[in-house]
Amino acid sequence: MSEHDLRIGLVGAGRMGGDHARRIHERISGARLVAVGDPDADRAEQVAASVPGARSHGDPYEVISSSDVDALVIASPGVVHEPLLLAAIERGIPVLCEKPLTPDSTSSLRVLEAEQAGGKRLVQVGFMRRFDPEHVELRELLRSGALGRALVLHCAHRNPSSPPGFTSEMMIFDSVVHEFDTVRWLVGEEIRAVSVRRPRTTSAAPAGLADPQLVTIETTGGVVADVEIFVNCGFGYQVRCEAVCEHGTALAGAAGGLRVHGTAGWGGRIDADFSERFATAFDREFQRWADAARTGGVDPDAASAWDGYAAAAACEAGVRAQSEGTTEVRLVERPGFYA
Amino acid sequence: MSEHDLRIGLVGAGRMGGDHARRIHERISGARLVAVGDPDADRAEQVAASVPGARSHGDPYEVISSSDVDALVIASPGVVHEPLLLAAIERGIPVLCEKPLTPDSTSSLRVLEAEQAGGKRLVQVGFMRRFDPEHVELRELLRSGALGRALVLHCAHRNPSSPPGFTSEMMIFDSVVHEFDTVRWLVGEEIRAVSVRRPRTTSAAPAGLADPQLVTIETTGGVVADVEIFVNCGFGYQVRCEAVCEHGTALAGAAGGLRVHGTAGWGGRIDADFSERFATAFDREFQRWADAARTGGVDPDAASAWDGYAAAAACEAGVRAQSEGTTEVRLVERPGFYA
Amino acid sequence: MSEHDLRIGLVGAGRMGGDHARRIHERISGARLVAVGDPDADRAEQVAASVPGARSHGDPYEVISSSDVDALVIASPGVVHEPLLLAAIERGIPVLCEKPLTPDSTSSLRVLEAEQAGGKRLVQVGFMRRFDPEHVELRELLRSGALGRALVLHCAHRNPSSPPGFTSEMMIFDSVVHEFDTVRWLVGEEIRAVSVRRPRTTSAAPAGLADPQLVTIETTGGVVADVEIFVNCGFGYQVRCEAVCEHGTALAGAAGGLRVHGTAGWGGRIDADFSERFATAFDREFQRWADAARTGGVDPDAASAWDGYAAAAACEAGVRAQSEGTTEVRLVERPGFYA
Amino acid sequence: MSEHDLRIGLVGAGRMGGDHARRIHERISGARLVAVGDPDADRAEQVAASVPGARSHGDPYEVISSSDVDALVIASPGVVHEPLLLAAIERGIPVLCEKPLTPDSTSSLRVLEAEQAGGKRLVQVGFMRRFDPEHVELRELLRSGALGRALVLHCAHRNPSSPPGFTSEMMIFDSVVHEFDTVRWLVGEEIRAVSVRRPRTTSAAPAGLADPQLVTIETTGGVVADVEIFVNCGFGYQVRCEAVCEHGTALAGAAGGLRVHGTAGWGGRIDADFSERFATAFDREFQRWADAARTGGVDPDAASAWDGYAAAAACEAGVRAQSEGTTEVRLVERPGFYA
Repeated sequence: MSEHDLRIGLVGAGRMGGDHARRIHERISGARLVAVGDPDADRAEQVAASVPGARSHGDPYEVISSSDVDALVIASPGVVHEPLLLAAIERGIPVLCEKPLTPDSTSSLRVLEAEQAGGKRLVQVGFMRRFDPEHVELRELLRSGALGRALVLHCAHRNPSSPPGFTSEMMIFDSVVHEFDTVRWLVGEEIRAVSVRRPRTTSAAPAGLADPQLVTIETTGGVVADVEIFVNCGFGYQVRCEAVCEHGTALAGAAGGLRVHGTAGWGGRIDADFSERFATAFDREFQRWADAARTGGVDPDAASAWDGYAAAAACEAGVRAQSEGTTEVRLVERPGFYA
Repeated sequence: MSEHDLRIGLVGAGRMGGDHARRIHERISGARLVAVGDPDADRAEQVAASVPGARSHGDPYEVISSSDVDALVIASPGVVHEPLLLAAIERGIPVLCEKPLTPDSTSSLRVLEAEQAGGKRLVQVGFMRRFDPEHVELRELLRSGALGRALVLHCAHRNPSSPPGFTSEMMIFDSVVHEFDTVRWLVGEEIRAVSVRRPRTTSAAPAGLADPQLVTIETTGGVVADVEIFVNCGFGYQVRCEAVCEHGTALAGAAGGLRVHGTAGWGGRIDADFSERFATAFDREFQRWADAARTGGVDPDAASAWDGYAAAAACEAGVRAQSEGTTEVRLVERPGFYA
Repeated sequence: MSEHDLRIGLVGAGRMGGDHARRIHERISGARLVAVGDPDADRAEQVAASVPGARSHGDPYEVISSSDVDALVIASPGVVHEPLLLAAIERGIPVLCEKPLTPDSTSSLRVLEAEQAGGKRLVQVGFMRRFDPEHVELRELLRSGALGRALVLHCAHRNPSSPPGFTSEMMIFDSVVHEFDTVRWLVGEEIRAVSVRRPRTTSAAPAGLADPQLVTIETTGGVVADVEIFVNCGFGYQVRCEAVCEHGTALAGAAGGLRVHGTAGWGGRIDADFSERFATAFDREFQRWADAARTGGVDPDAASAWDGYAAAAACEAGVRAQSEGTTEVRLVERPGFYA
Repeated sequence: MSEHDLRIGLVGAGRMGGDHARRIHERISGARLVAVGDPDADRAEQVAASVPGARSHGDPYEVISSSDVDALVIASPGVVHEPLLLAAIERGIPVLCEKPLTPDSTSSLRVLEAEQAGGKRLVQVGFMRRFDPEHVELRELLRSGALGRALVLHCAHRNPSSPPGFTSEMMIFDSVVHEFDTVRWLVGEEIRAVSVRRPRTTSAAPAGLADPQLVTIETTGGVVADVEIFVNCGFGYQVRCEAVCEHGTALAGAAGGLRVHGTAGWGGRIDADFSERFATAFDREFQRWADAARTGGVDPDAASAWDGYAAAAACEAGVRAQSEGTTEVRLVERPGFYA
């Protein structure tokens, strides 16, 4: 084994966990997957078997406590994130935790408190758009001041179809949670209020799912962002963000790529899903996290536990706004630890 | 004089009136401008002098009562539209009236009543987007059902700068009024409710003007449209409408045209103002109106007095919504006359 | 009849003649069609019947000699253009002659000589791209010097399918003739040499037609233009021109318009044919010609008889180049009359 | 050291060598750089110092003969490729050799013979466009037959400025060599003939450099490709390829990415250079090469020594064509070894 390699443990062996195992093995240099844990031991075994040198555990906590695990990736369902995160913080190892940090802001706050008590930044949340080249370019453009201050953001977030069991609430805390983070990160302000409007529902939506929805976000500095979330659009995966500023607008996520002219007209392909659209973002996120973890630091551009908490609080407001109209977001004072 | 030519009278000799005089003279076949009326007699004279065979009147009502005027174009300020329209209806001549029909729905209703009392459709309102090739193509696509039902519309309406004296209220009844008509015309439903949100204001806005604003429109069938109105965007004129449907989306108004690659990057020009962006729409609107007027009919695709009234009612709701939150639109029952 | 109206005679009542009759009637202000001539008297009658106030002649020369014909439009086949043009020049009336001026440069020269002998510029050739907004914008950009000198032009000219009887030679003198004029007009230089290359032929081409072809044009100043002519491309009508200059490139004719995202991907519609793509150009061309003709002048931006001659000479070189390789273009000295 | 890692030696420590060292260290998983060789020992030392665990050699052949080097990357000037390749083949280790294989087809043939004599495919040539996602998508589309057979290719290859000492001949064997490979790879046919045309030269070109040039390529099956090579275009780096097929066209390399609307118009950024445009292609190329090398195989999609030889032969024809007109490409019979 190379003395330079970061030895990674993975908790969660579902679709996302399997993707991440492959990513670490095939795309991430300077890091190696050594252990995979999942309560479904067969699934853990299957993922571990696909990576030379990796072993499996039926108990995820055995992965966290393994002395040869230098860093942890959490890809299990959000409801079990809190104890896993607390265990990793307790052991003092860096964690890349898939979003959400935890499913509600109260439990998110407990994670922040544990991290602060440990005295060292260890938690990164998987908001991978922060590594998407176009989103990065958009943020740099906004920060440069070339277009003046941002005033309005128009976001659209479309999936071809929703997975079984997807609920109207999940459209907020599973999907719009990305826009909550994107808006905060692009604008550099917290979210003050959220409201939700429900247009008529597409006939492609499963019974009971109000799809699409329009979410309006206001930041503490008065930026207003509207978000179309549409999880049964049928035709592909699209994530788009247009910033309207004082002296111009900038659009990330417009279709580019190969263009074909044929009997059907002219045009191009639409990405099939997020793993295609954000392949580079995921790779960069993991690579930079592994690089930082090897040297005991955190990636300053990545989403911290604070960012995960702020997103959880906005989601809670969004879910309330689905029934109650515009809802304020409630945040604790930001600890200096996360400045 | 050709017996086939439609003899047009023009009331209002400001910028719009001057544009329309030139349009009738240079672009519209089968029609001729014979009289121009404006209380500012010098201005009327100036416009008349630019068109061979046209005379001027300091009293606009002399234009309307002239026996050689077969049809009327109204391009004066909205506050004087009502009596001019009533006079033209009284004389029984077709009118192409620049938007708005009248500035409020109560006076609009009086125009509808007069037109119905006359027993003949005479009034067309100048919502020229109904003649813009891309908007027409968008509407045909929606009507074809190829993309399923429309669920959401995203509209943006940007001007480089606002004229002197432009108020926050005028952003609704002078600017968003176009989107009110566009949404009604594209979706084929009346507007049920309007709400308005004010993001932080651009530093380029004159004191007291809340610019940009986000207007949300709900139709009777549950379509939700968001409209960004931004009248001091600085960089050009843009009108964009994206329809999000059950099986796809369609976008009208994206930048096309000449593309340049140079040291500043790649891209194209943005239209300077509405007269450039909608030059073809204005020409088609006038041509089709003149063609219908010559044969005593109305253009079924154009905006009628009912459409002008419905827009006025939506504007009133929009202005109230600026201070009161979401506001219902109140309409009388649609008369069969306008079916 | 209005004393201001230009009374137009039309010779040629085929598809193009019918289009132009409609255009004059419906779109061109200040002008009226009074006579239609075609050796096929039925066809002439049919076109004349569609325009109130127009009569038909079975002898085209009767149209030209009619005292109430102020100006002539020629839309007959190129092989009969010469005598028609000479008759119109003899009578001293302005002519808008569909391209080509005449089918060969020797006969074109005779037209030039007649026009010069008459002492007055009367002939305009129907190269309507000179009125296409994007081509006009491209030319202005080149003239502005903002991108430095033009070095290379890449042109593509595609038709969905070729009409019956279309030959490899016609691909030069009927199709590429437009690019010959476009290159001359954009660059402001004569064409020095032409060469032709034949790639493998599409299976959609009729037997004997070498389609597509690549034509390379060199101007007197050393600009090289490549032209893809492809008349059975199947999918639509496209005319594209990219100018490669010292400090940048500019592209006219890229697909714009309505964009749709659906299950087939994203994209837009392709124009079906030239009458759709160049509708505005045709209208502007006719309007400006009629305006100039009414006042006894010529449109300085339009194609003159000299431009028609130069195109004929380039076509001859192109046809020779199909078999002989690179071929020089032979031109007489440009008369000051056409300066 | 991990038993699974491929231990790579690098020869050539210039700009490209430095880039590749960084790439292997930071982006390529399952592989490690262990040795860097360059006759300029300081330069070798500098590159080696940037990668933990790598050492330097002033004699490149020491790298090739090191027993801990499993595979070789050659990034030295093309003139020294032949002996380096022969030494690596002699040792039986896989080589990823930057283009060109060798600077002329005679020496390329000697490399092919050595590789065949060794009985095992070891050489991959660095034509990284074969890994560019859009080029890959274009090739798959062509192979699918959805657009019918390819007939014509339009290629443009632009650099902001040429490096010192760049000659007209280098525009062929250093730049157009990429298009020679792209055309062969996309069409699946060898190149039969090459011709070159020189438009007037940009004022930005250094004295003596004929820039831009237009290269025309014909394949054995009759496809014609035109290539604009322009190495002092000033404004950015662009590589574009449009395939014109029997039933449609497809364009790779059109500008996508972030779009900005501002006072200068609308548009986006142009890549600064090839390392930005082809970053993903380089990464994929190296990763797949390392994966294949670890298991003793070759990447079937990558460019082989035969592909390097064919490109060299086309370059020779191209350089002759600069002075002699259209020139045939001469190839030996393709050995079954490279089938």
